Amino acid sequence: MVAPSARPSVGIEGQPGSARPSVGIDLGGTRIKAGLVVDGQLAAERVVGVAARDPDAIVAQLASVIAELTSDPAIPVGLAAAGVIDARTSTVRESPNFPSWKDFSLGARLARASGHRVYLENDANAVILGEAIYGVARGASSVVGYTLGTGVGGGILLGGRLWRGERGMAGELGHVTVVPDGRPCNCGNRGCLERYAGQVGIAETLLALGPPLSRLTDPEPSDAARRLSELAAHGDPDAIAIFAEVGRFLGQAAAAVVLTLDVTTLVLAGGVAGAFDLIAPAMQAELERRTFRSMSDGVRILHGTLGAHAGIFGAAASTLAALPD
Amino acid sequence: MVAPSARPSVGIEGQPGSARPSVGIDLGGTRIKAGLVVDGQLAAERVVGVAARDPDAIVAQLASVIAELTSDPAIPVGLAAAGVIDARTSTVRESPNFPSWKDFSLGARLARASGHRVYLENDANAVILGEAIYGVARGASSVVGYTLGTGVGGGILLGGRLWRGERGMAGELGHVTVVPDGRPCNCGNRGCLERYAGQVGIAETLLALGPPLSRLTDPEPSDAARRLSELAAHGDPDAIAIFAEVGRFLGQAAAAVVLTLDVTTLVLAGGVAGAFDLIAPAMQAELERRTFRSMSDGVRILHGTLGAHAGIFGAAASTLAALPD
Repeated sequence: MVAPSARPSVGIEGQPGSARPSVGIDLGGTRIKAGLVVDGQLAAERVVGVAARDPDAIVAQLASVIAELTSDPAIPVGLAAAGVIDARTSTVRESPNFPSWKDFSLGARLARASGHRVYLENDANAVILGEAIYGVARGASSVVGYTLGTGVGGGILLGGRLWRGERGMAGELGHVTVVPDGRPCNCGNRGCLERYAGQVGIAETLLALGPPLSRLTDPEPSDAARRLSELAAHGDPDAIAIFAEVGRFLGQAAAAVVLTLDVTTLVLAGGVAGAFDLIAPAMQAELERRTFRSMSDGVRILHGTLGAHAGIFGAAASTLAALPD
Repeated sequence: MVAPSARPSVGIEGQPGSARPSVGIDLGGTRIKAGLVVDGQLAAERVVGVAARDPDAIVAQLASVIAELTSDPAIPVGLAAAGVIDARTSTVRESPNFPSWKDFSLGARLARASGHRVYLENDANAVILGEAIYGVARGASSVVGYTLGTGVGGGILLGGRLWRGERGMAGELGHVTVVPDGRPCNCGNRGCLERYAGQVGIAETLLALGPPLSRLTDPEPSDAARRLSELAAHGDPDAIAIFAEVGRFLGQAAAAVVLTLDVTTLVLAGGVAGAFDLIAPAMQAELERRTFRSMSDGVRILHGTLGAHAGIFGAAASTLAALPD
């Protein structure tokens, strides 16, 4: 049964909840990563390929993964997925990975198939919630986080609760304009943050520079950021400069967030955040440049610690998260 | 006595509270505007010059204004002032109008002098709260508003409550960057929204254009926006174009707010909002350009209806407003 109204308050460390066992499932476009989280630790893990695209088959596959992790129906299941998610009703409104799913009641369907309570959450929201409950931002009640993957997502925790917005679409931080007449984005805008700070954006930067760096985008543009960070780790000045630019754009975007919301905990997660040490100093400097000193003082930029398990922990954390009023 | 912990939930229309009588005081740098608000109407008003700068004299003057409006000590008093305000303790941390006030317990002092409960609020927060309770945004539980005065301020209502941020500094919407390498701002940044959309910013635009429009800034730059809007009302194409530019910058800034928070009610208040009909269409178009269609659809841009009384109504409204957890 899906019972969002019974959802307890968010389990920030030191409050009830975060020690409670739960199953977290990170439903990607090609892989299902699932884990049993007990006392904030990953007690068991399962990673399987998505076997089919149709809803019935995926619900059955998810139920089978849950059954492999626990036989206790009292343990709640959190499910994180990309797209427009209505967490109140555990419904997938739109999914980039499963375009045919429209207003699909994934939570209720999986609850019926598995016998567990199921909570569905947007993947970026889940990652930031996971960092706030199990990861680097433990103890912070207000957190804004950026997930730096193929694109850039975001999650916003205010006063101990995820802020999902009036229609469940809050946290689209990757599409905030940082270059008013900048690169065209798929969303229709120009100069979106993700065109500079996501993996695809970084590949665009490399292509614009030409050889030798543009060759990093071959054969797989989405892998270029990782290869660029290896170059930077070996001291390549061009590679270092590119991550500093990523940091400046993130700092400009984060300055708007800090001025608007006066939050003091910022988290960078996702693959590109692997170059945190190259990104964060430039981000901090730009944040200071673009806010009052009294606002930038005390703001912490943190590197998410959940790494490849962020989706699992985040999904598990979403079973603990209260909905906004 | 000041009793913020007893503060009731925000009196959104249709909920208890908004019909309760209260006194609202708008404490400016040179004038005190005060009113008795009953059933959402201004039942009595007093406007007096600030007679002195020192705290004791102003507290006495404020108490005397309150006594002229009501003799019932059960009626709460809301006080709106510019600067960094700690609403939890009704303390003025920093004031642009009274620079010598540092961590001044204005609320407690006035409560003692007047015998009323006193609630202190930042002036831009109060204006937006006033519009949400008594004005154009009645019934909306989440509102982001811009106060377009000398500079640009902001107020943020989320889920029926003012969001003040972790340190009471949220809503500094006038200092969000809209032109990365734009005009220098007093805050140390470049290209802040208020350098283009506030009265001083509009005067800068006029000065950069040279005569004849630059003459509008003479003798009083802060009056130029009003005179420019008179020109625009008479069909002057240059004046119309300048307000469209103000709208574009507001739309760019508001797009970031909508992408971040997924709020659907935006309010423009303050003197420059007098040119609302010239500003709003360009703001709406830029908002649509810089967000997903699914996010910009349904967003309302509203013209604050409280006008010159916004500060009084806002201060009165702050007696009804719950504090965030």
